Parts: sequence; structure tokens; C-alpha cells
Amino acid sequence: MSVAQPKENQYAGSLLLKQLVIAWLERRGVTLEDIARLVYEVQQKYIRNLTMAACRESVERVLEKREVQNAVFTGIAIDELAEKGQLAEPLATMLRNDDGLYGIDEVMALSIVNIYGSIGFTNFGYLDKVKPGIIGVVNSKKNEKVNTFLDDLVAAIAAAASSRLAHRDRDGLLK
Amino acid sequence: MSVAQPKENQYAGSLLLKQLVIAWLERRGVTLEDIARLVYEVQQKYIRNLTMAACRESVERVLEKREVQNAVFTGIAIDELAEKGQLAEPLATMLRNDDGLYGIDEVMALSIVNIYGSIGFTNFGYLDKVKPGIIGVVNSKKNEKVNTFLDDLVAAIAAAASSRLAHRDRDGLLK
Amino acid sequence: MSVAQPKENQYAGSLLLKQLVIAWLERRGVTLEDIARLVYEVQQKYIRNLTMAACRESVERVLEKREVQNAVFTGIAIDELAEKGQLAEPLATMLRNDDGLYGIDEVMALSIVNIYGSIGFTNFGYLDKVKPGIIGVVNSKKNEKVNTFLDDLVAAIAAAASSRLAHRDRDGLLK
Amino acid sequence: MSVAQPKENQYAGSLLLKQLVIAWLERRGVTLEDIARLVYEVQQKYIRNLTMAACRESVERVLEKREVQNAVFTGIAIDELAEKGQLAEPLATMLRNDDGLYGIDEVMALSIVNIYGSIGFTNFGYLDKVKPGIIGVVNSKKNEKVNTFLDDLVAAIAAAASSRLAHRDRDGLLK
Repeated sequence: MSVAQPKENQYAGSLLLKQLVIAWLERRGVTLEDIARLVYEVQQKYIRNLTMAACRESVERVLEKREVQNAVFTGIAIDELAEKGQLAEPLATMLRNDDGLYGIDEVMALSIVNIYGSIGFTNFGYLDKVKPGIIGVVNSKKNEKVNTFLDDLVAAIAAAASSRLAHRDRDGLLK
Repeated sequence: MSVAQPKENQYAGSLLLKQLVIAWLERRGVTLEDIARLVYEVQQKYIRNLTMAACRESVERVLEKREVQNAVFTGIAIDELAEKGQLAEPLATMLRNDDGLYGIDEVMALSIVNIYGSIGFTNFGYLDKVKPGIIGVVNSKKNEKVNTFLDDLVAAIAAAASSRLAHRDRDGLLK
Repeated sequence: MSVAQPKENQYAGSLLLKQLVIAWLERRGVTLEDIARLVYEVQQKYIRNLTMAACRESVERVLEKREVQNAVFTGIAIDELAEKGQLAEPLATMLRNDDGLYGIDEVMALSIVNIYGSIGFTNFGYLDKVKPGIIGVVNSKKNEKVNTFLDDLVAAIAAAASSRLAHRDRDGLLK
Repeated sequence: MSVAQPKENQYAGSLLLKQLVIAWLERRGVTLEDIARLVYEVQQKYIRNLTMAACRESVERVLEKREVQNAVFTGIAIDELAEKGQLAEPLATMLRNDDGLYGIDEVMALSIVNIYGSIGFTNFGYLDKVKPGIIGVVNSKKNEKVNTFLDDLVAAIAAAASSRLAHRDRDGLLK
């Protein structure tokens, strides 16, 4: 959709939507703490005295952005529909197998990273390849569950929160 | 997914997938001819002696790209699941209303445009705003159907096919 | 560059950099007021009681983002170097002629639009095609000056400021 | 620029431009062979019997794309202008220091990766972070030279050539 007339919407506020996003992620086995730990791992060598609290707060701010919320809702919905067998072929097979040539999960993830600028691309790619922490856990469950979108979404949120910290550090906004 | 080991896949070839894409688009009321007409409208003032046949052929080539196929399958699947009421809230409401702040449809569309280079962004934006031809038709059906992704996908395919023609014209590859 | 160790930098703060960005744009003949007018034109039909002051304020916030600042500095620098004949071939000719197949200007512009989410793509494409207000003025000077990047940058800033207003309107943050 | 009227251009053909791109890369210390080796490293575990010849051929095909050529010309031109002290502040300092918050190099690199679809994002990020082979060499020369754009461009070309191979392998087009 283009920037159109806002319509009546019972889910209007981005803060309310944030709570829903956190609930959806937890339903799929990912907590704020898990993502904050990825941010800490990526950024601790660049920011002196970085705390887990600052990482967690950065993840929370990222999850207040509507673009991020929409990507999470859409990606997790697709994973769950694939799991329940409600997707038509050939999509169903691609998602169940996490097909190496299916890249819509990365496309959606990049839309999250973009919001905090292109310096996050590198961290996203690295997290998506090396799969540390919760990303590896989510990925290893791919036999029982469809997590095709979830691992990319989590890597993207962590990369975005890392970029956000880097910008704030430069501006002297981290205590 | 990253560039991973290709798995056994009954839908392996991109030419076979192309036929499925065309069938999915037709099921939603969009023909190759409709999209070719958009390409003709956009490009006729730039390419001397442009024919509808060349436009149609360009649309066909675009639909052979796996990234394009995956975007079409995913976007139309979401539209149809929304239509059948199989999406959870808050996603269901956003898609049914084509919420002005939901931009995942544009994100997916851009991934199509990108394949033929950034010169297509402008044409995509223009088509998405002005909604000529089939895009307007698809859009006007939004009361009966959920076409939140479809109109952006069609604009993106037309913009990509236009960029492709512009590149080939420069290289002297259009007869 | 990846998210690396911040180095000593005399231009550290993003607020100081914003003043420089405004000065660079004015040197190329574009004022905040010009861009605010584009925002007003694009958004007035969607936001009730939209004021020019709100549009101008939104443009100012966009210009505080480092990603935006970097795109403006880089794009205008290239335009000016092309104008002074300091670019090597084949780049010099492409930029002087605003070559239809050169899309790096759009690539850089999209990185601005992305920061406020994908709902801005459509407005960017529309502004870039229709060229209202200052964009048309900048574009018409292409005989005397090289404005290959400038017109896309201005369209992108206006599209980003429009998206920002749309998000804030939904959140009830516009008075 | 949008998809506009092609103008007279002495550098018209994309094959001629490819030779220029190769010359520009070599001038900056990067050969086709160097990039092919990165592709081999990234893809050998996914494609049985992958040869260096196939990797090199894939890099060559990537360099025939105008979007790729334009990104290389623009990025290397900026690196060289920064090296010669011909860029204005604050851009000069950012580029000389490869400022961690300057992301236009990644933006340009992504426009290369995009052409072969989003499955290349992960490989790009990985190469940009781990800096194997020639990327590490280019990066280590940053005291004497400005290679702010060059390392990202090389990583992007390698990631794009890898994606291209993955797609062709699936389609049975690799012998």
C-alpha cells in the first residue's frame, strides 16, 4: 500500500502492537533476552561498557517500529501456516524445506535492517551465516517446525538493534 | 535462507515454475497481456517502434526469474489466506483494509524490481500511484477481494520488464 | 563499513551534520521550505489539518538521520565533481547526460526512503516521475548544472518525511 | 534517473564497459581471479564438482550487468577522489577513516547483490565481516589507500556470482 488514508483500526497504536510482537516471538520460542544477547555479542567489542540492559532496551525500541512489527507478523504467520499445511504448492514445499533459492525471508528481514541504515547489512549477514545463540537453536528445530522466516527475522532485529546502539554511541546518547 | 545445498524438489526448474506463476496470476484475474500493456504504456515513448510482442516477451522473461516467482507465490498466497479468513489478527485486519502503514507488499515488490536494476524504482512508484490499466482494475476489486499484494506485484513485474527493455534497447538487442 | 569502533571525528554529532546538509542543499538551490512544500502536496489529502509547519518539522527530523546525511553529502559531491570535470570516463559522460541506465542515484535515494519504511517507495517513484515543484526546477537546470543525484535526493527526503508524518498521524502524535 | 530516452553514448555497449570495469578493479589491485577464488570458497560446499573456471565465468557474467558496472565505477571513483584529497568535508574525513557509521558503500554493494536475488545477502554480509582472501588484502591497505568502497564492491560481486551459480545449479545449467 502507498501512504494512504489511515483507516479505523483496533490495533492502532505501535506500542500495543509491540506487545503482540513480543507474544508472537515467544510463541515461537524467542524471548527479548535471547535477542538482546545476540546484540551484546555483536556490539561489545565496539562499545565500551556496553550493558545487557542497553542491548535489551535497544531491541525494545526496534520492536516499536511498525515496519518491524509488520515483517514479524507476516513472516511468523507464513511459518505457522506452512507448519499447519495450509499453504498451496509449490510454496509449501519450499518453505518446509527452507529451500536455498527461496529468498523472500531475507527480503523481509532486510526491510527491518534498513530502518537503522545500511551499516546493519554486514551484521545481519554474519548472524544469518554463523547462527549464534538463539538463531542456531531456532534453526536446529527445522525438523519439527517451520522456522524459515523466524531465523532471519531474529537476525535482522538483532542487527537493527546493534546499528541503533552504534548510532547512539556516536551521538553520546549511551550513558 | 542462505545459498544452501539444493534439496530434492519436484518443482525444480524455473521454466516449470513460470507456468505455475502465470496460472496463479490468472486465477487472480491478471493475464500476461494485461501486464504487457502496462509495459507498452510506460516504455513506448522511450523505445522507437516498440511492439506489444516485445513487451509480452519481456514480461515472460521476468517471470522466469526465481526471485520473481517466489515473490508472486508468497504474495498471492497471503492475499488468498486473508480472503479466506485464515490469517490471525492483527495481520488479518491490516490486509483486509490494505492498511496504509503496511508496507510488506511494497518490500516484496521491490525485490522484483531490483533484479533489473534501480532504474525501475521510478516506474514502479508511478504505476503504484497512478494505477493504470489492470492495476486499477485489481485495486477497484478490493471490496470483494483481498488484493493487497497483487497490485504491487503486477506493478513490479511491469516495471522490471520495462527496465529489461531499456537495457536491451541500449545494447542493440531489440530488433 | 560494518558497525565498527567509532573513531575520533570532528563532525561527530548528527545535529551539527544536519546544519551542513542544509547548507549543501542550499548551495545547490534547494531550501527546507521547497522540500516541505512537496511533503504538503503529497500528504495533505491523507492528513486532516496538515500544516506547512508540521511538514517542515518532518523534513528537519529526516535530515538528522546519519544515513540521510551521508547520502546527501555523497550524492551532491558526485554532482559537483561531475560539474567541475573531475570524474573519469565513462562516469563523467553518464552523469553529465543523466544517463537513463545509470541508477546509482536511485539506489542512494532508496536508502533514504527505507529509513521510514517501505510505504515511502510509492511516493518516491511518483515524485521522481512527475517532478513537481523544486524537483522540476532542479531537473530543468540540467543543461547548466549536473543535478543527477540532487533531484532523486530531494524526492527521497520528501517521501521519507511524508512516511514519517503518516506513521505519527496513526500514533496520534500530530497535534 | 528514471527509464529515460537513451542518449548518444560512446560507451554504449555493456561488453565494452565490462572491459573498463576489469581495468578499474585491476588498477585498485583486484583481479578476476581474486574474486573467483572468493566464489569458490563460498560455494564449493554447496555445488558438487564446482570448478574455478565456473566461478570465474560467473564473475565475468556479473560484470556484464550495467547496474554492477555503474556501482563499480562510482565506488572506485569516490575512493580515488578521497585518496587524492578532492572531496569536501565532512565526506573526506568519513571516507579516509572508513567511518563505521558511513553506510553508502554497503548501499551500493547491495544494489549489486540484489540483481541475483536476496539469497546473496547472507554471503555478502559474511564476506564483508570475515574478510577472506583479497577482501582482507584490500582492507589491510587502508592505511596507504582509501578502499572504503572497494572491499564492499568486491564482496558484493563475489556474493552475486555465488547466487548466480546456485540458481544455475538448480536449473541443471552447470555442466
